Amino acid sequence: MTTASICTIGDEILIGQITDTNSAFLAKALNKIGVKVIHMASCSDSDKDIANTLKRCLKMSDVVITTGGLGPTKDDITKRVLMRLSGSTRFRTSRKQLEIIKNILTSRGIQMLDINRMQADVPDRCTVIPNRIGTAPIMQFHFPEEMFGRNNLLFSMPGVPFETEFATPDVIASIQAHYKLDKIFHKTICTFGIAESVLSKQIEEWENSLPENLHLAYLPNPILGVRLRLSIYGTTQKEGEEELEKYSASLKKILGDAVYGEGETNPQTVAGELLLERNATISTAESCTGGYIAHLLTEIAGSSRYFWGSVVSYDNSVKINTLGVNQKTIEKHGVVSKEVVAQMAEGVRKKLGTTYSIATSGIAGPGGGTPAKPVGTLWMAVSGPKGTVTATLVSKSTRKINIERFAASALDLFRRSLISGKI
Amino acid sequence: MTTASICTIGDEILIGQITDTNSAFLAKALNKIGVKVIHMASCSDSDKDIANTLKRCLKMSDVVITTGGLGPTKDDITKRVLMRLSGSTRFRTSRKQLEIIKNILTSRGIQMLDINRMQADVPDRCTVIPNRIGTAPIMQFHFPEEMFGRNNLLFSMPGVPFETEFATPDVIASIQAHYKLDKIFHKTICTFGIAESVLSKQIEEWENSLPENLHLAYLPNPILGVRLRLSIYGTTQKEGEEELEKYSASLKKILGDAVYGEGETNPQTVAGELLLERNATISTAESCTGGYIAHLLTEIAGSSRYFWGSVVSYDNSVKINTLGVNQKTIEKHGVVSKEVVAQMAEGVRKKLGTTYSIATSGIAGPGGGTPAKPVGTLWMAVSGPKGTVTATLVSKSTRKINIERFAASALDLFRRSLISGKI
Repeated sequence: MTTASICTIGDEILIGQITDTNSAFLAKALNKIGVKVIHMASCSDSDKDIANTLKRCLKMSDVVITTGGLGPTKDDITKRVLMRLSGSTRFRTSRKQLEIIKNILTSRGIQMLDINRMQADVPDRCTVIPNRIGTAPIMQFHFPEEMFGRNNLLFSMPGVPFETEFATPDVIASIQAHYKLDKIFHKTICTFGIAESVLSKQIEEWENSLPENLHLAYLPNPILGVRLRLSIYGTTQKEGEEELEKYSASLKKILGDAVYGEGETNPQTVAGELLLERNATISTAESCTGGYIAHLLTEIAGSSRYFWGSVVSYDNSVKINTLGVNQKTIEKHGVVSKEVVAQMAEGVRKKLGTTYSIATSGIAGPGGGTPAKPVGTLWMAVSGPKGTVTATLVSKSTRKINIERFAASALDLFRRSLISGKI
Repeated sequence: MTTASICTIGDEILIGQITDTNSAFLAKALNKIGVKVIHMASCSDSDKDIANTLKRCLKMSDVVITTGGLGPTKDDITKRVLMRLSGSTRFRTSRKQLEIIKNILTSRGIQMLDINRMQADVPDRCTVIPNRIGTAPIMQFHFPEEMFGRNNLLFSMPGVPFETEFATPDVIASIQAHYKLDKIFHKTICTFGIAESVLSKQIEEWENSLPENLHLAYLPNPILGVRLRLSIYGTTQKEGEEELEKYSASLKKILGDAVYGEGETNPQTVAGELLLERNATISTAESCTGGYIAHLLTEIAGSSRYFWGSVVSYDNSVKINTLGVNQKTIEKHGVVSKEVVAQMAEGVRKKLGTTYSIATSGIAGPGGGTPAKPVGTLWMAVSGPKGTVTATLVSKSTRKINIERFAASALDLFRRSLISGKI
């Protein structure tokens, strides 16, 4: 199996100033094409550290991808190390990258300096993959077997996450062209509201019936639920896709409405798709989630086609005056109750004139709560032309995670209520 | 200087399923007490991988901290490796941890099984730091110099981020007790709205005047602005604090109202503190930020004391009907304009009856925009008893980062307008 190491270069990682998200992104992309990541490492910006780390990675794995350690003010230490390691003898200028650098600086109204121009200079033994949205090019090196005992490819990528992400498809294509990778196809089924242990019990029989070349992976996420990834090896694309379709169909049949989507989706994306299909609109009335559901919905480009707005009613006065919740209902049932949250959903739907609405009222913590309504209690409601549906749950985590779970749960209640025709 | 390596154990990291946030958290904590992190690594759940990685880390650094690789279903591979490495001969039960496991399971209404009980079993050569909020204990091992050429401390911590974060102070205290660390004291000054290059020019003279044992670090963050961290070495606590106070005071004088706080703070925390001091309340009217400012404000426990609510007015109908924005103003100036955003701020303040308000209208992208108002344009307004202040900016990034910058900028405009007495 073709193996890979991912290495992040930079003092800012080692002092904890930034969290490395590039490695997880690259690992996911490599994993998808059947390259096994066996090692990840972070090292400082020093010449010696970079050289030692890269040598170790080149000896232990076929593909090595580095991120960071470039940039105009970094003295190009990484480039110098790569120059030496690859046996390059001089720098050459990548004309394509120089052109891109010029355009980027011009659009920002910045004058080109020597340190900018030098970013297009690369060791002569490397192949350049132009960085179309940033100044530092992606450098690809080939190390034949006599160098580190393997037929290595090494890619040096920039550290800025969205530049790394943008260039990843090019790097992946280059790896696929170089190695004979096992053919591998995937299908991911996203579920919500079932614990991993319960899920595994539920699909045990189905799982045992899978053919040998079909592999199932559980990918649990504390907010988004458990994803089930089916991978098939050693088939043609057509055959593989047919098999995946067949087994995912039988899986979805077992799981019913716990399945909310396929692939890299999430509850807010699914909610948006359902609304677009129906040419419908939505609003939210949020207490404990404090605008987070509205934020999730509007994080998606184009959400203005179905999301009209939200009333974040943190204070009871807003619930009463803006959403029209009955003060007596609050006094009788408490603000975290089925009755109040239903009135909030109905109130915002009417007030903003949307087809549907979502409402939340709960105790995110860490303070508050009673024995009957402990910290982490959520009441949620969704409302539409056919009626209002309410539900409750208790999340035992930090304030931050409770809020995120509340939001995802309310969006999922919307999906289930909508497709079952209850709202 | 005492050095450290941080190692995350788990296949879920290597396949990119989760992003490792523990390493950055631990690195920051170690950095603060003057321990230099020189290496980070991630390895799989296999016995051989864990053993090789730990041996490498123990040889290259004094302190080794691992996270993950524990948990009831992981077969305790990490524990077995640590057993061997440390020369332990048997497992012993940590009574304290067993008690905690019992309590956690009881509170969740789960029956204790053998796999739960076994989590309290640790190699006999380790010292246990109880994990008060989780089931897997923190194991501390001491490796004297004859073992790996150093006087090593190794800590094995759980992988769940909030358990790791909760136990970090205990681990840090243990490291401080074991090593003679250089005394080091810090003070961090948070600035907003000045680019790193401009900032460094502005404080150049001040920076050149710093004594040798006072070190300045620039910690830029794309959303929160540049933090300036002053560190002082080789003094007593009293002396160190006095020196830091003196130099940070002169720094703050140069930077004026660009400084929004000290230490680990952010614009929403500062806004909350200012409101509490004044016993005042706030509301938001959000278009392009879609509830994100409300979310930031309510992420803080206790925010219900000053945050009353928000009207997320994504659709113009909500701006007009709920916030009372004049339709003609929208027609004349466009919805992304000084005039509209001022009316939004004034509208929500009146509607919700709060002392102050914040409003945003802009183009988060990637679509939309005109030559006059390109993608990334924000108009923001803050309003209070003394008046309304508006401002604009252009952020050239992804939709996600644009929204986050818009929110931070609006919160910072609120701070500056409030302390200068304009609202």
